[in-house]
Amino acid sequence: MKALILTLALVTASPALALDGLRATGDLGVVIERATGSVLIVDRSDRAAIGRIDGLGDLSHAALTYSPDERFAYVFGRDGGLTKIDILAQKIVKRIVQGGNSIGGAISDDGRLVAVSNYEPGGVKVFDAETLEQIADIPAGAKTIGLVDVPGRRFAWTTWETGEAFLADFSGPEMVVNKLGDVGKNPFDAVLTEDAHTYLIGLFGEKGVTAIDLWDEVPKPVRFLQDYGKTEDDLPVYKMPHLQGWAFTEGQYVLPAVGRHELLWVDSESLEEVARTPVHGQPVFIVEQPASPYVWVNFATPLNDTVQVVDSRTHEVVQTLTPGAAVLHMEFAPRGAEVWISARDDNTVAIYDTRTFERVGEIAAESPSGIFFTARAHRTGL
Amino acid sequence: MKALILTLALVTASPALALDGLRATGDLGVVIERATGSVLIVDRSDRAAIGRIDGLGDLSHAALTYSPDERFAYVFGRDGGLTKIDILAQKIVKRIVQGGNSIGGAISDDGRLVAVSNYEPGGVKVFDAETLEQIADIPAGAKTIGLVDVPGRRFAWTTWETGEAFLADFSGPEMVVNKLGDVGKNPFDAVLTEDAHTYLIGLFGEKGVTAIDLWDEVPKPVRFLQDYGKTEDDLPVYKMPHLQGWAFTEGQYVLPAVGRHELLWVDSESLEEVARTPVHGQPVFIVEQPASPYVWVNFATPLNDTVQVVDSRTHEVVQTLTPGAAVLHMEFAPRGAEVWISARDDNTVAIYDTRTFERVGEIAAESPSGIFFTARAHRTGL
Repeated sequence: MKALILTLALVTASPALALDGLRATGDLGVVIERATGSVLIVDRSDRAAIGRIDGLGDLSHAALTYSPDERFAYVFGRDGGLTKIDILAQKIVKRIVQGGNSIGGAISDDGRLVAVSNYEPGGVKVFDAETLEQIADIPAGAKTIGLVDVPGRRFAWTTWETGEAFLADFSGPEMVVNKLGDVGKNPFDAVLTEDAHTYLIGLFGEKGVTAIDLWDEVPKPVRFLQDYGKTEDDLPVYKMPHLQGWAFTEGQYVLPAVGRHELLWVDSESLEEVARTPVHGQPVFIVEQPASPYVWVNFATPLNDTVQVVDSRTHEVVQTLTPGAAVLHMEFAPRGAEVWISARDDNTVAIYDTRTFERVGEIAAESPSGIFFTARAHRTGL
Repeated sequence: MKALILTLALVTASPALALDGLRATGDLGVVIERATGSVLIVDRSDRAAIGRIDGLGDLSHAALTYSPDERFAYVFGRDGGLTKIDILAQKIVKRIVQGGNSIGGAISDDGRLVAVSNYEPGGVKVFDAETLEQIADIPAGAKTIGLVDVPGRRFAWTTWETGEAFLADFSGPEMVVNKLGDVGKNPFDAVLTEDAHTYLIGLFGEKGVTAIDLWDEVPKPVRFLQDYGKTEDDLPVYKMPHLQGWAFTEGQYVLPAVGRHELLWVDSESLEEVARTPVHGQPVFIVEQPASPYVWVNFATPLNDTVQVVDSRTHEVVQTLTPGAAVLHMEFAPRGAEVWISARDDNTVAIYDTRTFERVGEIAAESPSGIFFTARAHRTGL
């Protein structure tokens, strides 16, 4: 830093900066504090909170995505709020309320566009990532679910009431939206495999899972796992198991059995079920431990004080932990050495070593839910 | 930044900092300038160089690895130098000469240990990532190749003269080194699959490839692809094709045919050859374009002005580009939207859009070779 003089006053009041005024962002993260409309900024290396940003509205259901430089996070809240925060300066850059009930969003592969999917009024809106100015408004006449970024400045999503999947392409001068097909009745969630090859859609209104090969010249829906899904015809819609996690490991998809205490393993080539794993409760998130054969699972209330670790080779539970009351989310260090687990009703984020299963740290947080490390900025489909 | 006052003098002299004194690191990178012993610090978002660090010794053959926070890079040079640089402050933090000829290194999954593999005097040395103090010296009586980090504070490597593979475990109070087995005659390179499952070793002294399953209770070498390797018995050792790249895509390994103008595709389950692709020259690096079915290939001299793109589904060349004279390396934006290509003899890093194949930018550099983006901090086995 030749010829640069920094005069720092009250350095301790700005914990986001090291003493020399510089802070890298590769080991930072954001924890949603669902009850207080705030987020905690955390440092993975120090296993510590380094700041809090307030005023993000209703975060009782929230998700976020990062800018490619890892400096900004776009937080999607239940009140339709889209808040751009600066995790280095620890402040809100801009906040707009763009819908009545947003449930998630994504950022384009070039980092220029942020898309938000809405329950109310439905549809997808796309914003300039720099200014949050609206670029496109794509009504769907239906709630949108499973919005993901697709390489080439594209986004895919699915509609709840009408059971359709769409792909929007922003690479040219004009936006082009194509319908990918009819995917089945009341899709409750959709995810993209990490290689951006397959868009997988779970159904609530009928049995089965739908896959769409996005590398195909003309992508089209293919139905598989015809036994997968709801077990009772009269299951009310307000129990819709939205935003559950599916993992992809060892040539398999791992899905939560809807309403049952089981994981389902599906061969990703043949699309045939290859195994079931009995687990502690109804699975919510199933997350791969990076660079390992293991997935970690948390569970729906009232069995939500527990996390289990399952080996994708044997399909057996190899470890059961009880991190705290109301475990809502798990986030791995990107190379898998530790996992951070939010225990909402203990107001704690617990940190576990993935090799020894020892609890190696914890961080106080107000009703923590989602945990998001900045390494997500470099992954497709999140 | 409440209550923080920054007084900046001569801000323009410190291009690493934005006007508010803050810079995130997610979109930064380092380019090796092989002839001048310097490195260029680049900003992916701006497609620009933002600084240069001199004094890194002989970088005519060099590699680097990043700290988990993306602030520091550890540069391994041909002169045995290990240089820790600070890419935010744009300066050398510490430089030691730890051997006579180092050819690569790795950082442990917790970011605490940096390991260096040496040709001269051979063996592996391990250093504290913070201070560069030596933690361990593991003589091999042979040149070491293919050093990789393995989850759980471990490192694996292979020896040239003795044909052995080793795994060192630093997770306990004492280092434990185990021999994984005899892998064959004169291994020239080894790589780890991204899930840290399989350690693959190419042989120069005989035909075949060796795989070791690191998830096994007792990992052991398995030989496959018995036709792979040298085609002439008298090929001199100074042509050893070290540090070539292997890609893993669509359930396949892609290997450079030694001495031939071909890629070899191997099914990763059956370990059988499934296809060959005739290409422009002798392949050097074969790199996956993230979130796509494509691999990009560059070639050995004198055919090294060309890059080809191959579809992993059809195994056919889909594009041929001529980015410049002496193409040495290719690095993708982590979500695959663009690729940066070093053309040594044009003193240029050329940037291509991976969808349109248009040249969208270029950066002046002194004899550029390796390009390393900070997203590597979050990947295993690099």
